[in-house]
Amino acid sequence: MNEQGTIPFRKRALAGAQARAEEARTDPALSAGDHPPFLSLRLLATGKAEADTLMTAAMLDEQLRQPAGYSFKMSGIRCRRFSSAAESQSQLAARALGDAVRNAGVDPASIDLLIAACGVQEQALPSTACAIAAHAGLPAGTPAFDVNASCLGFVVALKMAASLLASGSYRRIAVVSADQASHGLDWSHPESSLIFGDGAAAALVERGQGRQGIRSFGYQTYTEGRRLCEIRGGGTGKTLADGAQGADFLFSMNGKQVLKLALQKMPGFMSELLAAAGITLDSIDVVVPHQASHLGMAHMIRKMGLDRCRIVDIYPTHGNQVAASIPTALHEALSSGLLGPGRRALLIGTAAGVSLGGLVLDL
Amino acid sequence: MNEQGTIPFRKRALAGAQARAEEARTDPALSAGDHPPFLSLRLLATGKAEADTLMTAAMLDEQLRQPAGYSFKMSGIRCRRFSSAAESQSQLAARALGDAVRNAGVDPASIDLLIAACGVQEQALPSTACAIAAHAGLPAGTPAFDVNASCLGFVVALKMAASLLASGSYRRIAVVSADQASHGLDWSHPESSLIFGDGAAAALVERGQGRQGIRSFGYQTYTEGRRLCEIRGGGTGKTLADGAQGADFLFSMNGKQVLKLALQKMPGFMSELLAAAGITLDSIDVVVPHQASHLGMAHMIRKMGLDRCRIVDIYPTHGNQVAASIPTALHEALSSGLLGPGRRALLIGTAAGVSLGGLVLDL
Repeated sequence: MNEQGTIPFRKRALAGAQARAEEARTDPALSAGDHPPFLSLRLLATGKAEADTLMTAAMLDEQLRQPAGYSFKMSGIRCRRFSSAAESQSQLAARALGDAVRNAGVDPASIDLLIAACGVQEQALPSTACAIAAHAGLPAGTPAFDVNASCLGFVVALKMAASLLASGSYRRIAVVSADQASHGLDWSHPESSLIFGDGAAAALVERGQGRQGIRSFGYQTYTEGRRLCEIRGGGTGKTLADGAQGADFLFSMNGKQVLKLALQKMPGFMSELLAAAGITLDSIDVVVPHQASHLGMAHMIRKMGLDRCRIVDIYPTHGNQVAASIPTALHEALSSGLLGPGRRALLIGTAAGVSLGGLVLDL
Repeated sequence: MNEQGTIPFRKRALAGAQARAEEARTDPALSAGDHPPFLSLRLLATGKAEADTLMTAAMLDEQLRQPAGYSFKMSGIRCRRFSSAAESQSQLAARALGDAVRNAGVDPASIDLLIAACGVQEQALPSTACAIAAHAGLPAGTPAFDVNASCLGFVVALKMAASLLASGSYRRIAVVSADQASHGLDWSHPESSLIFGDGAAAALVERGQGRQGIRSFGYQTYTEGRRLCEIRGGGTGKTLADGAQGADFLFSMNGKQVLKLALQKMPGFMSELLAAAGITLDSIDVVVPHQASHLGMAHMIRKMGLDRCRIVDIYPTHGNQVAASIPTALHEALSSGLLGPGRRALLIGTAAGVSLGGLVLDL
C-alpha cells in the first residue's frame, strides 16, 4: 500500500532510458575500465513480511494518551506495523525470505548462502542469521552469518553478495533484513520513538546477465557521529553487572545533529557515487532511499535536488524500519512495476555510525 | 608466550613443501579450473592486543574460593587475560589494529575498509566497527561495518575481504576481531565460565602475488545447535521490558552436545575443504584452529588424526577468546616463524550457531 501507483512511471522510465542512451553515446569509455569495477548482479526476486499488528496513528494517539492527530503530526506516519510478542525478529525475517522464494519460484534448498543484514540482532550470540535459517527451514549446513551496518546493512550485504558471486564462491545468495524497533523504543522521547515500524524484506540474488549489476557502490563512516544514534546496551559496553539501566537498552537519537551531519556529507558522497558509476542523476529511474523520517527525507530531497516523482516513499505507511527500510522500499518498487528489468535504481541512505551508503543497480 | 617455540619447524615446513611438490606433480589440473576459485590474498601483517589484566589459574582459584589447582584442572588454562573496566572492547580492538599497522609499516590512512568480526558486539547499535574506527583514529569517512559469524567471524571476514579485493573494490582492508567474554560469564557454571579469555587480533590484507591466497573456503551452519551456545539477551529476543533476567545476558553452553555435533560434522567438512583446495592434510604446514577448549581441541585432534606438532595451541596461555582466537593464534604462528611466506595454513574451527568453518591459506 504505497503511493507509487499514481506516478506516471512509463514517462519517467523513458526519461531514464533516454539519459542512458545519451550517456552511452557521449562516454564510450564507460565499460572500458575507466571506472571502478562493475559487479554483475541479478535480483532474482524480492519478498516482504509485514509485522503482525497494525498500528495506526489514531491507535498510537490513544495508547500514548495524546490528542487525536498528535502521532501523525510528530511523525508523518499514518500507519505502521509492530510485531506482537508472538512474532520474533527471525520469524519475521523467515517470512520475508519465504515470500522471496515463492516470488522467485525456486527451491529454498537452492540457496547457497544466507546473509542476515539487520540493524539490531535478535540476541547477542549467535548471529541472527542462524535463527532465520532455522525458521526458514533451510537445509542443514546452509551457511548463515550476519553483516551489520545499521540501517545500511542491506546495501552492504548486497555488495558482499555480488563480490562473492563474482568470485564464484556461491551461485544463489539470500539477503534478509528484519528489524523490530518496537522492542527498543523510548516512548518518553517522541522524536526517536514515533518514527519507527517493524518489518522485514529479502532478496535472492545471482550473477547477472549482460549489464545487470552494481555500477557503483559507496560506503563511508563518520565516527564523530557514533553517539548520535545508538543503543548502548546489548553487548560488552554497558552490562547489567556494570550498572546498566533500562534506558541503556533503548534507542536514543539526537535527530538534529544526525541530520546536520548527513546533509553536510551527502552531496559529496552522492556526486562520488554517480561519478564512479559514470552517470548523472538523470539516468536513475528510481531512487530507493532509506526511509529515515519524514523530515529527514524532505530535507535530503530538497538538498540533493531530487525529483520527488522518482523517489520510493513508503514512510507514511511503514515508518522507519531500520535495515528493513531499503529492501522493503525496493520490494514495493518492484512489485508496483516502478522498477523492473532494464531499469536503473539508486539505493541510498544514512545509518547509525554515522555512515552514508549507496549503490547504483542496473536491473 | 605459546608453546610452538620447541617444535622442530623446519622439518615440518619441508614436509609441507614436499607434499605440495608431490601434489603439483600428481595433479596437473590444480590451477586449471577444476576446483572452486582460488582467491588471491596477501597477509600484509597481523597484530595482537592483550587485555590489560593478567589472571592466572591460581588467582582465579582464590577469587572463586576454590582449592589450588581447581581452575587449571577444570579448564586447562594456566593464565588468561581479562579487560579491566577501563578498557572497552573497541579500545582493545583498536590496539590490535595499531599493532598490525605498525608491523606492516604502513600509514593507517591507507586502510580502505575496516571489517570488525567480533563474536559479541560492544553495543546493540551501531556496529562495533564504528567504535573501533574511532579509537584507531582512522580518517573520517573510512568505511566500517561488522561481520558476525560468532567464533568464526575472522575466517568469514577474511573471505569477504578477499572477495572485495578480487573485485577491485578496495586495495587494503583491515579485519579486526576483539572479544571480552569476561563481561558475559556465568561463574556458577564452571564448564562455560572457566575456558575464556579476553583479547583482540587484527590483519591487514591486500591482493596477493602469484600463488598467495585462499585455496579453499568452507562454512556450514547447523541450526539444530543454535541453542547450545548462546547469549539470549542483547537484542530484540529477550528484553528487560519483556522480563529478561540477568542470566539472559550471560553466556550459556551445553558443551557436551556442541562437541558431539562438531565431532560428527567435522570429518566430512574437513574432507570437502581439502578436496576443494585440491590438497591433502599432509601439505598443510600449520593448522590454526579455534581455541575452543582443551577438551574440544583434544577430541578434534584425535578424531581428525591431526599431527599435534603442526597445530597452533595458544589455549593454555590465552583461553578461548571467541572470535579473537583464530587471528590471535595466526598472529602467534607468524610472529614465532611457524608461518611465513611460501607456507600453507589451515584456519579451522567451530562457532556458536552451530557453524563449522575454515580456509586453506597459501602465504
